[in-house]
Amino acid sequence: MAINPLPPGTGTTIGIDGLIALLAKLPGLGPRSARRAVLQLIKKRESLMQPLARALADVADSIRICGTCGNVDVQDPCAICCDPKRDAGLICVVEDVSDLWALDRAGLFRGRYHVLGGTLSALDGIGPDDLNIGPLVDRVREGDIREVILALNATVDGQTTAHYITDRLGALNIDVTALAHGLPVGGELDYLDDGTLAAAMKARRKF
Amino acid sequence: MAINPLPPGTGTTIGIDGLIALLAKLPGLGPRSARRAVLQLIKKRESLMQPLARALADVADSIRICGTCGNVDVQDPCAICCDPKRDAGLICVVEDVSDLWALDRAGLFRGRYHVLGGTLSALDGIGPDDLNIGPLVDRVREGDIREVILALNATVDGQTTAHYITDRLGALNIDVTALAHGLPVGGELDYLDDGTLAAAMKARRKF
Repeated sequence: MAINPLPPGTGTTIGIDGLIALLAKLPGLGPRSARRAVLQLIKKRESLMQPLARALADVADSIRICGTCGNVDVQDPCAICCDPKRDAGLICVVEDVSDLWALDRAGLFRGRYHVLGGTLSALDGIGPDDLNIGPLVDRVREGDIREVILALNATVDGQTTAHYITDRLGALNIDVTALAHGLPVGGELDYLDDGTLAAAMKARRKF
Repeated sequence: MAINPLPPGTGTTIGIDGLIALLAKLPGLGPRSARRAVLQLIKKRESLMQPLARALADVADSIRICGTCGNVDVQDPCAICCDPKRDAGLICVVEDVSDLWALDRAGLFRGRYHVLGGTLSALDGIGPDDLNIGPLVDRVREGDIREVILALNATVDGQTTAHYITDRLGALNIDVTALAHGLPVGGELDYLDDGTLAAAMKARRKF
């Protein structure tokens, strides 16, 4: 209950219940955890609640989509596209910004990215024009690109999209590669699905 | 990727990583779920991110502790203490605001509350003066109170606190009651601890 007394309120319209309802819309939070979060925020008003309100407002104001690669950042072109230490001849194609972040956290790729914004999906009616594929082809045609790495999910839609992009890039004289399929590190054969086992067997290599 | 273009930024200091770090401090969210939440917020900038920023700032500005009962609300006295339809002769004593909310959601108590802000704890060095107990005694002495219901957790500290409050209220001519102990509804004997079974056996009643 470490809350300082405050001067009388200034006409709040949303209130505590509204704040709980908004927080409950975040992935990973439901009504119960949103209530816990709000109590925590109220207890840490100055160290957490006010900074969080400012950070949300700041990022909401300044966020933009990189016109080159589709990443989200507070600048356009994004920090990755601007980084001269990254190899501009390598483009790693991902479905979503979350995939870009995951690859970049791993720190094993020092080229640039291209975010499609989804995958082709006949069921959901998503065609090539709904994705960021045309700009990728332009980028490869106009830039000095050596290799395009397709880092799409190992799902039917992801692989369909990979095949489509490979076709579109076929006429241009570059390498198009894809992430390997096989056993995840630490994976036990007994628990893996047949598709993974078949892919790992097909791609077996000399030991 | 449904984000509208924006005019150039206005000097963000915190950035996306700072927002993720702040969100990860909420209970129930870690770094991974905070990243997912931030991506969701960015995708729903106008319907979720901006309203959430405003709600946080509003509530941070307007939140206050009810001087009567210790509840948090945007007004003092709080909505519960101001509600004339609630029985002012009944006070339900709880440890924390979260307990108050839990009881009030259940909708089975139509009196008023008193939030202690914790429990007595020799280990943590929390004595009666650190809790909201004195004001409770004053409230009972000065008001027209018929019954005080101790709705404290069934923990050692909770029950110690309940005994202490019962002693303090002993001289005043009111009923002091406590929540019943026993089997939780839907509970199976096989999975319950010995303490619960003993309490349920001791408090057995004619069927």
